[in-house]
Amino acid sequence: MLQSKSLSIEAYSALVATKAKAASQELAWLPTHQKNGWLKASAEAILKNAEPLIRANELDIEQSASFGLTPAEVDRLRLTPARIAGIAEGMRQVADLPDPIGEELESRVLPSGLQLSKIRVPLGVVFFIYESRPNVTADAAAICIKSGNAVILRGGKEAAHSSRAIVKLLQETAVDFDIPVDAVQLIETADRAVIDSLLKMSKQIDVVIPRGGASLIHRVTEQARMPVLKHFDGNCHVYVDQHADLEMAAAIVENAKCQRMGVCNACESILVHEKAASPFFEVLIPKLAPYHIELRGDEGVRGLVPSAKEATEEDWSQEYLGPILSAKLVGSVEEAIAHIEHYGSHHTDAIVTADEKTASTFLQRVDSAAVLWNASTRFNDGGEFGLGAEIGISTDKFHARGPCGLKELTSYKYQVRGTGQVRT
Amino acid sequence: MLQSKSLSIEAYSALVATKAKAASQELAWLPTHQKNGWLKASAEAILKNAEPLIRANELDIEQSASFGLTPAEVDRLRLTPARIAGIAEGMRQVADLPDPIGEELESRVLPSGLQLSKIRVPLGVVFFIYESRPNVTADAAAICIKSGNAVILRGGKEAAHSSRAIVKLLQETAVDFDIPVDAVQLIETADRAVIDSLLKMSKQIDVVIPRGGASLIHRVTEQARMPVLKHFDGNCHVYVDQHADLEMAAAIVENAKCQRMGVCNACESILVHEKAASPFFEVLIPKLAPYHIELRGDEGVRGLVPSAKEATEEDWSQEYLGPILSAKLVGSVEEAIAHIEHYGSHHTDAIVTADEKTASTFLQRVDSAAVLWNASTRFNDGGEFGLGAEIGISTDKFHARGPCGLKELTSYKYQVRGTGQVRT
Repeated sequence: MLQSKSLSIEAYSALVATKAKAASQELAWLPTHQKNGWLKASAEAILKNAEPLIRANELDIEQSASFGLTPAEVDRLRLTPARIAGIAEGMRQVADLPDPIGEELESRVLPSGLQLSKIRVPLGVVFFIYESRPNVTADAAAICIKSGNAVILRGGKEAAHSSRAIVKLLQETAVDFDIPVDAVQLIETADRAVIDSLLKMSKQIDVVIPRGGASLIHRVTEQARMPVLKHFDGNCHVYVDQHADLEMAAAIVENAKCQRMGVCNACESILVHEKAASPFFEVLIPKLAPYHIELRGDEGVRGLVPSAKEATEEDWSQEYLGPILSAKLVGSVEEAIAHIEHYGSHHTDAIVTADEKTASTFLQRVDSAAVLWNASTRFNDGGEFGLGAEIGISTDKFHARGPCGLKELTSYKYQVRGTGQVRT
Repeated sequence: MLQSKSLSIEAYSALVATKAKAASQELAWLPTHQKNGWLKASAEAILKNAEPLIRANELDIEQSASFGLTPAEVDRLRLTPARIAGIAEGMRQVADLPDPIGEELESRVLPSGLQLSKIRVPLGVVFFIYESRPNVTADAAAICIKSGNAVILRGGKEAAHSSRAIVKLLQETAVDFDIPVDAVQLIETADRAVIDSLLKMSKQIDVVIPRGGASLIHRVTEQARMPVLKHFDGNCHVYVDQHADLEMAAAIVENAKCQRMGVCNACESILVHEKAASPFFEVLIPKLAPYHIELRGDEGVRGLVPSAKEATEEDWSQEYLGPILSAKLVGSVEEAIAHIEHYGSHHTDAIVTADEKTASTFLQRVDSAAVLWNASTRFNDGGEFGLGAEIGISTDKFHARGPCGLKELTSYKYQVRGTGQVRT
C-alpha cells in the first residue's frame, strides 16, 4: 500500500491514477448485483470490525492535539459504535438505491432508420479531496462505486488511520465480489504535492471534487486540468416580503439560522420589506434570544432594533457559519433579488410571502441552486430532496447543481443501432 | 463598439464580461416569443442586408492572402447569396426548436409536504472561441440566445469584418425585441491577451467553448478558471468483426472514411478480425481506389494488401482528416475494444457484425460519445441525431457529451414550494 515511501510523488500519482483508470473500465459495466453485494458485505465487515476500527481511530484521536484540532473537531473525528453502525447503515442505504448506470435517458428512431439510445454511463475516475471525518471515506466510496466510478480518496491527515482501516476493509470485500481492488484507493501520503500532481492527470481522472475550505477549492480550481465539481460557500438569504405571514417568517428565519449554524444551507442574511419590518422584528427578536444571535443591520434595521450592530459592506458577502445574522431593509422584491444576485453565493435562498406573483418572480429570477417559497433554507439537502446519499452540494451550474447523488456522478453515451446505414 | 482602442486589455475584458453577465440575468427569464421574434427578425435582417454583408466579407477575402489562407480556407470564408440564405434559414430553424428553458425535469412532493420542481435554466454567459467561418457567428448567437445565454464571441481574425457586420445586425434587431444588446458581443481586437484575460473571469463567465486546433484547446484548458466544453479530435474507428457482412462493412468504411474526410466523425482507423481480413480487403480495396486513400497497416494487413505502407505507433493515435487510413488485424472484439480504448479519442466508434452479442459487448464497453452498430461513424452529428442546431461535438464526459445543442447549454435549479415548513 505505501508505495509513496519508495516512489517519487509523480510516479506514485501516476501509478494511482493509472490503476484507477483501469479499474473504472471494469466498473463501468459491472452488474448491479455485484456492486450491491459489495456494498452490503462492506457494511457487514465494518460492523464486524468495529473494534479494530475504533483502535485505529484512537491513533488519530491521540494525534489530534498535534494538529491543533478544536474539541468540536475532535468530536467529529471520533468513531463510536453508534457512528460505525451509522456508516454501515449508510452503505446499506446506497445498496438499496436504484442503479443509475445503463438507464435509457432517451430513445428514438431517426429518419435514416437508425435506432438511437442515450444511455447513462459513469464519469470514470473521481478524485475526491475532503475533510477529516472518517465516515466520509465510506460514504464517498459507496456513492462512487454504486455509480460505476473508481475513486481516489484524499482525506484529511487528521483521520489518516481511520480512513486507512476503512479502505482496507472495503478493498478486502471488493475481492470477494470480483470488484477491482483499485476501485477504491486512498492516497497514502500527507504530502500536498501529490494533489498537484494528480490534478494534472486529465487523461486518467475525469472529475475532481474538493470539499473543504475556500483556499483548498481555489487551489484545486487553479491547478486542475480536469473538470472540478465545487462545493463552495453558502451565503443563504431569507427575504421576508411585505405580504408575509410574520409568524411563519420568524419561524423560518429561526430554523434557517439556528437549527444548525455550521452548515452551508444555514441562513446568513435576512432581507425584510420595509413595510413589514417593524412588526416582523417584534416577532423575530424574542425567537432568536435563546440562541444569542448577534444581529448586524443596515441603518433601517438599527432604527428598529437598537441592539443591532452596524453591518459593513463585507457582512453582506459573509458566510458566518455561526451565531451572527446580517439584516437589511428593502423596498421591493426586485431590490431583494438584486441584493441576493450581487452578494449571494447562488446556494440557497428563500422568500416568505402570501403573494403568489411575488413568489414566482423570486423563484424565477434568483439564480441559486435551490430557491424556496415559504420554507426553510435548511431543506436544500440530498436526503431531504429524496436523492438518497450525496457526495456534496454543488454551487456550480455546470454538469450538476445543488445536492449531488448517484446520478450527478454520471455521464451518458449514444448507442446507435443500424442495418448498414451510410450517410449521403 | 471599439472600446479596445481606448481601454487596457484587462479593462476591456472586464467590461465585456460584466455587460454579458448583466444581459444574461435578463435573458434567463425572457419569454420564448421574444427570443423567437428576435431570431426570425434577425434572419430577415440578414437576408435584406445580403449586399452589405458581402461587401464586408470582401474585405476579409482581400486580406486572406496576408493571413496565408489556403484556397479551401478562403472558400470556407466566402459569403455568397446562397450562404447568406443558409445563415438566415439556420436562425429560423433555431426559432422553430422548442425552448428548453423553464422545462420541468422532475417534480415530486416530499414527505415534508414540500413541492419540489427541478427546472431547466440557462448556464448564463458562454464564451465561444471559434474558427473563421462567418456563418458560425450567427449560428452560435442563435443557439446561445435561444437557450437563454448571453454570448461573448471570439471568432478568427480572418473573418473579422464579416462577423462584425453580422453581429451589428443581430444587435440592432435585439433592440426591437427588448433583448439586451449585450446578449451578443463580439471581441473587437485580435490581441490574444484578451482571451487569457477573459478566461480568468469565472464570476462572470459560466462556460468557455473553444472550437479549433488542439493547441488552442490545450491553452484554453490550462488558462480557464471556469468550465471548458471541449470539442477535441476525432480518432474514429470501424471494427469489422469476423461475423460481419463484408459488403456492408466495406460500404460503411468507404462512407465513414471518404464521404467527407476533413471532419471529426470521419473514420481514421479500421480494425479487422483476422478471420474476416482476407475476403474483407478484397471487397474494400477496389471501393477505396477512386479516393486515392493511402493505407497504413500492421504486419498482418501488409501481408494481405501489398500496397499498404507500414503503420507506426503514432499512426494509431492519428486524426488524419485526409486521405490516409490506418488498419490493424485483431483476434477478437476484446482486442479491438482494448485498442480503441488505448488509442482512440472517445469520439465515435463503430462495429460491423451480424452477431448481436458481440455488438452488445462493443456498444457497452467502448467508452465513446457515440458507439454505432452496423452504421457509419458519420452519423454522430446534432442534425442527424435530431437535436436541431449544434454548437459543437463534445469529447468531454462532464456536463455534455457528443453533439451539443440547446439543452447542452443549460443547467437547472430546484424550486421548492412550501407552507411554512421548517426542518426538525
